[in-house]
Amino acid sequence: MRAAILRNKRIEVGDIKEPEPGPGEVLVKTLACGICGSDLHVLHRARHEETGGGGIVMGHEFVGELVDYGPETTKRLKRGTRVTSIPILGRKTGAEFIGYSAINTGGYGEFMRLTEDHLLEVPNGLPTEHAALNEPMSVGWHAVNKTRLQPGDVPLVIGCGPIGLAVIAGLRIKNIHPIVAASRSPKRRELALAMGADIAVDPRERSPYEAWREQAQTGLPDPGPTLPGWLVGSGLKPAVIFECVGGPGIIDEIMAGAPQDARIVIVGLCFDEDRFQPMTGIRKELSIVFSNSFNRAEFAETLRHLGDGKIDAATLVTGKVGVDGVAGAMKELESPQAHAKILIEPWRA
Amino acid sequence: MRAAILRNKRIEVGDIKEPEPGPGEVLVKTLACGICGSDLHVLHRARHEETGGGGIVMGHEFVGELVDYGPETTKRLKRGTRVTSIPILGRKTGAEFIGYSAINTGGYGEFMRLTEDHLLEVPNGLPTEHAALNEPMSVGWHAVNKTRLQPGDVPLVIGCGPIGLAVIAGLRIKNIHPIVAASRSPKRRELALAMGADIAVDPRERSPYEAWREQAQTGLPDPGPTLPGWLVGSGLKPAVIFECVGGPGIIDEIMAGAPQDARIVIVGLCFDEDRFQPMTGIRKELSIVFSNSFNRAEFAETLRHLGDGKIDAATLVTGKVGVDGVAGAMKELESPQAHAKILIEPWRA
Repeated sequence: MRAAILRNKRIEVGDIKEPEPGPGEVLVKTLACGICGSDLHVLHRARHEETGGGGIVMGHEFVGELVDYGPETTKRLKRGTRVTSIPILGRKTGAEFIGYSAINTGGYGEFMRLTEDHLLEVPNGLPTEHAALNEPMSVGWHAVNKTRLQPGDVPLVIGCGPIGLAVIAGLRIKNIHPIVAASRSPKRRELALAMGADIAVDPRERSPYEAWREQAQTGLPDPGPTLPGWLVGSGLKPAVIFECVGGPGIIDEIMAGAPQDARIVIVGLCFDEDRFQPMTGIRKELSIVFSNSFNRAEFAETLRHLGDGKIDAATLVTGKVGVDGVAGAMKELESPQAHAKILIEPWRA
Repeated sequence: MRAAILRNKRIEVGDIKEPEPGPGEVLVKTLACGICGSDLHVLHRARHEETGGGGIVMGHEFVGELVDYGPETTKRLKRGTRVTSIPILGRKTGAEFIGYSAINTGGYGEFMRLTEDHLLEVPNGLPTEHAALNEPMSVGWHAVNKTRLQPGDVPLVIGCGPIGLAVIAGLRIKNIHPIVAASRSPKRRELALAMGADIAVDPRERSPYEAWREQAQTGLPDPGPTLPGWLVGSGLKPAVIFECVGGPGIIDEIMAGAPQDARIVIVGLCFDEDRFQPMTGIRKELSIVFSNSFNRAEFAETLRHLGDGKIDAATLVTGKVGVDGVAGAMKELESPQAHAKILIEPWRA
């Protein structure tokens, strides 16, 4: 099959062996697969030997068409059904990730094998390209769920890439407003507003924390300087700050900007060691909540949200390419001023 | 008045001017004052110019005898009453800390001025030396309160200095058991058990995380390796880990040892920049909750707990000195194998 293959920190197009479904597994034809920010990270990091020599086929945000069943399957879905799945093969010998392995190839190739038990049918009427957003949208939904928001909480979303936008979509579903968003990209600020943010600021022009503060007024009199913040609180509505940028330094930066008692939810990924000032956390009594991916229920729930039109997915797909276009698309995503999500359609000529 | 004065990273005994109570303030004779771990930190850090040239008189864990009233006071308490207070002067111009300032001298000296509004009467029958533990005990109580523990949560307390012991005391009051504690000091492990810990391990002999795991079994079958931890959880009871050591590196160390979904409550202080691995937090979906001091209600509540005998304070005072003994006591506390809390009684000859 044709695939965009990662070898030696480069994406090359090549022909590789079609995957064979094992016990409890199915074969799908990839219909669409998103390029994830983590894929960019792996692209720059993975050395030849780390990619299994032969290279890896990435892609964990996929929709496929059910083509064939392996042994020991129940065959509950018809061939031809559009399906998605968490990017995990549930094998008797252990869980294996799809898309970052030389063996379990992902949606950057024409075919994939998936675990039958994990298959979710794409709802009727939901376009394939929107269903392909389910994985990143689930990441945002999980972060919002995990935070146990209450009416009166005022969220601030730092970074409006696909994950930040997914968080905003989740906040809108939970009806938590006003939502303050921050991004340097005009395109992404526009998308943030379309997804449900009430205010979107360019952090180079205005401090997101000041914009947040304006929205978080309680109308209570200022407690004044008689007692320190840790004794009397901020006098503002509760702050929940979603870190959706990733990379070193951003957690420390948010801790420095955060108001007293803020909860900081880390949704962005930082693969490197990071530095921070514990005393800032202590003085402000901050909480840092690390959020990772989603659980199976949230993945299914997000697909229903997409199917019911609760997430306005149409605006998020800003580009589509075949396997030949993957290297170029990943380059464009390096300075993502104009893009949210680029999809790969490996069946394209 | 006589005082133990911090000058040039040294404690010297000297005579300084007795403080004068300002508007809304009272003068107290210091009866007892604890030496705090933060005082040790300041001792090694404070340069001559930072200590106001003339030096500072530390001490923010104090009990005093009410000696005199300044102007604009209500005089609601009789002279001679034993009192304590949060270590804050609430002035019209702002809050000022007591004990880390050249002007607002603390309990390392014979007399102090306090804000009348902040005075709490020491309950009848509560020995002065136990009431002097109220400040550190409140720090532990606040950390436990802040964590909103529920029955079934299994706490692990890392570090059994006065703050770790205060956390254990708070957990016992909330009836959250089993409590697993870890300390390298045999004396402190013994105190941890006396304060309410169910198990106290030496981390050089046994991993505190293994000891915790043994107590956190749910009896549920092991979820096995079919799905990763972030999808299925740990299968164990919820972990709440109290960091009561302080200093760089310990947060990262606890993150590495913590089970899936653990909440880590930072009660120890780290004044320096610190390093950590965000991906550890993300993969395990950890939460880090920074806890600082206490609020006024918690400070008062802890004094009631001490008065009602809910905290077994008798075991915690492991030494008493006059101002002449402060330098030696601080040196002993550097390797605190044998000590929990040393009190200063500045009136001692």
